[in-house]
Amino acid sequence: MMTYGTRFRVTLFGSSHGPEVGAVIEGVPAGRPVDAAILQSALDRRRPVGRRLASRRQEEDRLILDEGVEDGVATGAPIRLHVANTDVRRSDYDGIRSTPRPGHADYPARLRYGEAADLSGGGIFSGRMTVGLVAAGAIASTWLREIGVEVVGYVRSIADVTATVDEGIPIGDLRSARDRNEVGCPDDGVATQMAERIADARRAGDSVGGIVVVRAAGIPVGIGEPFFDSVESAIAHLAFSVPAVKGVEFGAGFASARMRGSEHNDAFYLDGGTVRTRTNHAGGILGGLTDGMDVVARFAVKPTSSIARPQETVDLARRAGTTIVVPGRHDPCIVPRAVPVLEAVVAIAIADLALRSGALR
Amino acid sequence: MMTYGTRFRVTLFGSSHGPEVGAVIEGVPAGRPVDAAILQSALDRRRPVGRRLASRRQEEDRLILDEGVEDGVATGAPIRLHVANTDVRRSDYDGIRSTPRPGHADYPARLRYGEAADLSGGGIFSGRMTVGLVAAGAIASTWLREIGVEVVGYVRSIADVTATVDEGIPIGDLRSARDRNEVGCPDDGVATQMAERIADARRAGDSVGGIVVVRAAGIPVGIGEPFFDSVESAIAHLAFSVPAVKGVEFGAGFASARMRGSEHNDAFYLDGGTVRTRTNHAGGILGGLTDGMDVVARFAVKPTSSIARPQETVDLARRAGTTIVVPGRHDPCIVPRAVPVLEAVVAIAIADLALRSGALR
Amino acid sequence: MMTYGTRFRVTLFGSSHGPEVGAVIEGVPAGRPVDAAILQSALDRRRPVGRRLASRRQEEDRLILDEGVEDGVATGAPIRLHVANTDVRRSDYDGIRSTPRPGHADYPARLRYGEAADLSGGGIFSGRMTVGLVAAGAIASTWLREIGVEVVGYVRSIADVTATVDEGIPIGDLRSARDRNEVGCPDDGVATQMAERIADARRAGDSVGGIVVVRAAGIPVGIGEPFFDSVESAIAHLAFSVPAVKGVEFGAGFASARMRGSEHNDAFYLDGGTVRTRTNHAGGILGGLTDGMDVVARFAVKPTSSIARPQETVDLARRAGTTIVVPGRHDPCIVPRAVPVLEAVVAIAIADLALRSGALR
Amino acid sequence: MMTYGTRFRVTLFGSSHGPEVGAVIEGVPAGRPVDAAILQSALDRRRPVGRRLASRRQEEDRLILDEGVEDGVATGAPIRLHVANTDVRRSDYDGIRSTPRPGHADYPARLRYGEAADLSGGGIFSGRMTVGLVAAGAIASTWLREIGVEVVGYVRSIADVTATVDEGIPIGDLRSARDRNEVGCPDDGVATQMAERIADARRAGDSVGGIVVVRAAGIPVGIGEPFFDSVESAIAHLAFSVPAVKGVEFGAGFASARMRGSEHNDAFYLDGGTVRTRTNHAGGILGGLTDGMDVVARFAVKPTSSIARPQETVDLARRAGTTIVVPGRHDPCIVPRAVPVLEAVVAIAIADLALRSGALR
Repeated sequence: MMTYGTRFRVTLFGSSHGPEVGAVIEGVPAGRPVDAAILQSALDRRRPVGRRLASRRQEEDRLILDEGVEDGVATGAPIRLHVANTDVRRSDYDGIRSTPRPGHADYPARLRYGEAADLSGGGIFSGRMTVGLVAAGAIASTWLREIGVEVVGYVRSIADVTATVDEGIPIGDLRSARDRNEVGCPDDGVATQMAERIADARRAGDSVGGIVVVRAAGIPVGIGEPFFDSVESAIAHLAFSVPAVKGVEFGAGFASARMRGSEHNDAFYLDGGTVRTRTNHAGGILGGLTDGMDVVARFAVKPTSSIARPQETVDLARRAGTTIVVPGRHDPCIVPRAVPVLEAVVAIAIADLALRSGALR
Repeated sequence: MMTYGTRFRVTLFGSSHGPEVGAVIEGVPAGRPVDAAILQSALDRRRPVGRRLASRRQEEDRLILDEGVEDGVATGAPIRLHVANTDVRRSDYDGIRSTPRPGHADYPARLRYGEAADLSGGGIFSGRMTVGLVAAGAIASTWLREIGVEVVGYVRSIADVTATVDEGIPIGDLRSARDRNEVGCPDDGVATQMAERIADARRAGDSVGGIVVVRAAGIPVGIGEPFFDSVESAIAHLAFSVPAVKGVEFGAGFASARMRGSEHNDAFYLDGGTVRTRTNHAGGILGGLTDGMDVVARFAVKPTSSIARPQETVDLARRAGTTIVVPGRHDPCIVPRAVPVLEAVVAIAIADLALRSGALR
Repeated sequence: MMTYGTRFRVTLFGSSHGPEVGAVIEGVPAGRPVDAAILQSALDRRRPVGRRLASRRQEEDRLILDEGVEDGVATGAPIRLHVANTDVRRSDYDGIRSTPRPGHADYPARLRYGEAADLSGGGIFSGRMTVGLVAAGAIASTWLREIGVEVVGYVRSIADVTATVDEGIPIGDLRSARDRNEVGCPDDGVATQMAERIADARRAGDSVGGIVVVRAAGIPVGIGEPFFDSVESAIAHLAFSVPAVKGVEFGAGFASARMRGSEHNDAFYLDGGTVRTRTNHAGGILGGLTDGMDVVARFAVKPTSSIARPQETVDLARRAGTTIVVPGRHDPCIVPRAVPVLEAVVAIAIADLALRSGALR
Repeated sequence: MMTYGTRFRVTLFGSSHGPEVGAVIEGVPAGRPVDAAILQSALDRRRPVGRRLASRRQEEDRLILDEGVEDGVATGAPIRLHVANTDVRRSDYDGIRSTPRPGHADYPARLRYGEAADLSGGGIFSGRMTVGLVAAGAIASTWLREIGVEVVGYVRSIADVTATVDEGIPIGDLRSARDRNEVGCPDDGVATQMAERIADARRAGDSVGGIVVVRAAGIPVGIGEPFFDSVESAIAHLAFSVPAVKGVEFGAGFASARMRGSEHNDAFYLDGGTVRTRTNHAGGILGGLTDGMDVVARFAVKPTSSIARPQETVDLARRAGTTIVVPGRHDPCIVPRAVPVLEAVVAIAIADLALRSGALR
């Protein structure tokens, strides 16, 4: 449903083609700074690539803080915020009622909700619902920063182009490197190739997917609630709520399957007075609890479902095969836009669990 | 924490070296058959490979139904069941209090819970906690079968050996093929190689990981709760509670990242009167809802953390590096044993969501 | 926090002096009628007595359905609705920051939330938060009516004036009798006395409390979830969220304490083919489950905390005793306005539990 | 269902005539003392009056701590505890399958759960389920005591006999006075009359009800979660889970309905440096938050449903009226036994909310 979290709780509202999208955020203590500019900045990173660099700034995704923040400070009441949907074209979606778009929720939603279903632009299945998630994540990230936790995501691969990123570089450097290009990949050369793959897909009326990595550094040891509320469970639960995410792995992830225990187990050693591990195949999580190493999560993002090319589908009303050309404006690659969303996922999951374990107060 | 689920709710209890492990299961309607033999059979599949074929049957993992079932039928009250821990050797674990085992929860648990932590055999972090999960899953599976849903898991890879399994074969045939060998891989030839890899690891005092696939066939369209309680979220949440799972993907999963939208989108067509998709890259889930195709989930299982070889670690009391030889009995590969656990994960997640959507009653 | 319910779920948002108050309502199936006029009518009943009869209709509490309803029918997506706060006078509340009003949440809120607390008009502690609850209750009531359940509340007492109401009269007649006067008491003569008590209090710059009864007729047998989610637990949980409610009882309630078991136990008999009880001391609930008799709940509503008379309090800044004359517009009796709120409480609690038991679908 | 609580979480298991009853308790931090003798003492107070004084001590209600406590200290893992049901006579209940006992859950349970329902001794509807609640409450009380909170309950009335108890006496004195007699009423003279009423009822084959008061002193200001998780909501939710509770009120409670605002509002004043209120009509709770004054809750306990006298009921199988003489051993008054149960209710509710607000750690 629309609510996630125990202590740091997010309730999303709105829909892709209704008047607005937003969130109610509970659990932020009175007196905590909530900087609208930081939230806006996170939302701006979520906007389509290319539009960000554009000089003619459209008044889009302008964050409104409705309640719970006064003079930049949380009042202790639930924080409500929203972004208006200014560019709604409902008529674009008239055709999809009986001819579901491949890759979209149209077909199961139609069977679940029947004739009354609002499928305009994906309704509540739209990626636009993540606006509230990103804003909530920015609040969580700001808070986590106070206990030394930094959450940084980047694009690791797009289509067949994969960056090799040293997981050992300081997280501030990682963020800087990522921000040097529009794709959000910390390797500029690779980012250029990625941008080409996106341009190729656009020209072909097609789309490409990719992989996003999110690292969280400075994590206290022992966050997580065994058995069912492990750190991995919380992050994966939230991540798989995000449309287009089809895989989640931590540390060595699927590569673990090919490793031997003697290779996979991260050996402990003392680095100065600090216990660290020589490798981080566990992705910073042992037994569902953080072990103090960076939490490293990787997310598979499928290629955008809306493409310009004709696709085979079924006309449900006529019960006959047909071809659809999906209406609306297409984004040939949402992977860079997924970065702030998946940073939000990690920040919200960790903030909620850190509140539960007492690491965050 | 120890409870999962809204309508079909499981609360696990016990610990690896306490008197017992078990579960309280809520949401099973009065009058529904609960067959102790089916539950026992699922538990037997969870026992170590090799032991299953052994002639001298030890009286282990004997399921006791304590409450909520009378004469093979649910009474409507919560079902409580347990398995006694008969083979507990606490002294094996005395050494690990100050020298955490690599790959285990010892280190974060020690920092979280301090001196008082009970780490014997992993305490509540042990894979033994999955006993209750498997029993609950067997109840969920039985119930789902009444609406035509079949849940079958198998071993897809162990170490570098991977089976190529036709996802199109009938699920009953898949189960039969899987049950022909002890490894639980539907390709006998490959299973033999897998068994060799396991034997190799055992001889080397080491361990191997692998990948488990779970398919659920016969799924009604439209199960799942947007936004946060998508089918993927529910399955991944539960799966990442299971010790050793480090990755979860659905359908094409991480391979989606390299695909184009025109390739990834599953085209709809009419198969007789039924809407189907020509491919199943979505793994049976669109927008978080089931689309009627098989739900296909893949899980990365890391190599067993307990190995016989000496490992580098830290003596927390002396604040000095040291070497540990992990005590206890080691299982060189838990992947086959993870199959019934991950079947349970999928069955419980789907049963809970099917109850919420009204598909199951 | 701001969310209640498992299957029929209500999340309230807004605050008394922010831009709006409203609710997100989940669990209403696609295709179900949602009549804005019925919702508006419930909200109108929640407005101050006297204003309702006034000829010059102010455009207040005008319900806006933002999402989830199209052409009077639920789309299956969450329903979001709100009412604008048009008559906000924040300056009225400047004085209360350091001098808490007796009977209000000001003092504990100030200590919990500190300087940052937004106490304007009670913030989230205001009775105005019940706007969303009333709208959600109207949706629940409409739905319950389809399975024959009618929920009707009335004023039983105000100050020392108590009506004697025959619990056996048909619920439709009860509603009609209640609606004949502005106080909402089914006995017109008594209602006149109640109105006098309210007028007396107003003249004295004071306020009066009272008791509200809510009956739910036509209830199916067996709704409720043992142990912790009994029907009484659900209704009381919601009722005690409503500001000003200080007591809740069911059936004979506190009078049970003086009864003998032989008197209190409701004898079963056959009325035609229907099992009924000769009395209803249980208030329609046995063992936390509905028994088919009317659910009868009584709620104690304290006198309005905001009164015009000077009151003793403490200046927290100066750490000295002082006197406060509470600013803002006062309502000498909120008991009649609490009727639709407490009807909503009963309807939401029963709808959520009826969905869980399968009685509502 | 069987689980309550967010941070301090209790899951009850067992049934009245199964092998045992008990609880799994989560949220108790590692290192916290858990004294089995204190828990046992709370359970002993829950046993039938008269039996407590008996010289021939039966081995009943002997608490077993199964998990989560080592050497009197919590390990951080869930605490599991149970009490065996040693004195089960299932055959006593054969007759009630088709002839529901007035005042019991038999009738709605039979309709909800059908033929399969286990009604022996009330099954999960039995007061015996409160064993786990009392043990959990003793753990919560012990913990709360560390931050200066004391929870003490007593019997205020039985049948028509009511004690006048000065709410201002120190809570330690209240406990001592209560413990001087077997009834649990702090006024010995009144307690003697109460014991007579109980004896009268027993002789008459009947039963009597009463009122229990629970006071919590030393409460920090600001505990509670607006809107839906007010302190009153939490306490009432738990209290109405307890069989036989039919009314809950706080502070002036139902008497508030007759008061004027100027009388009901508790004036603030400075007592030394401490803000206090001159009266406590609010029962220590304003706007759902604690205000630092004693939390005072009153609970109506109905007369025991099981009485020896013949009662009118219906034979559901024959669809005909009949008379039942309820089998089993009857307790003519459970009010004294309800005291430790309702103390547990208040302690658990406050502990959970104090953990959420940060007042307890």
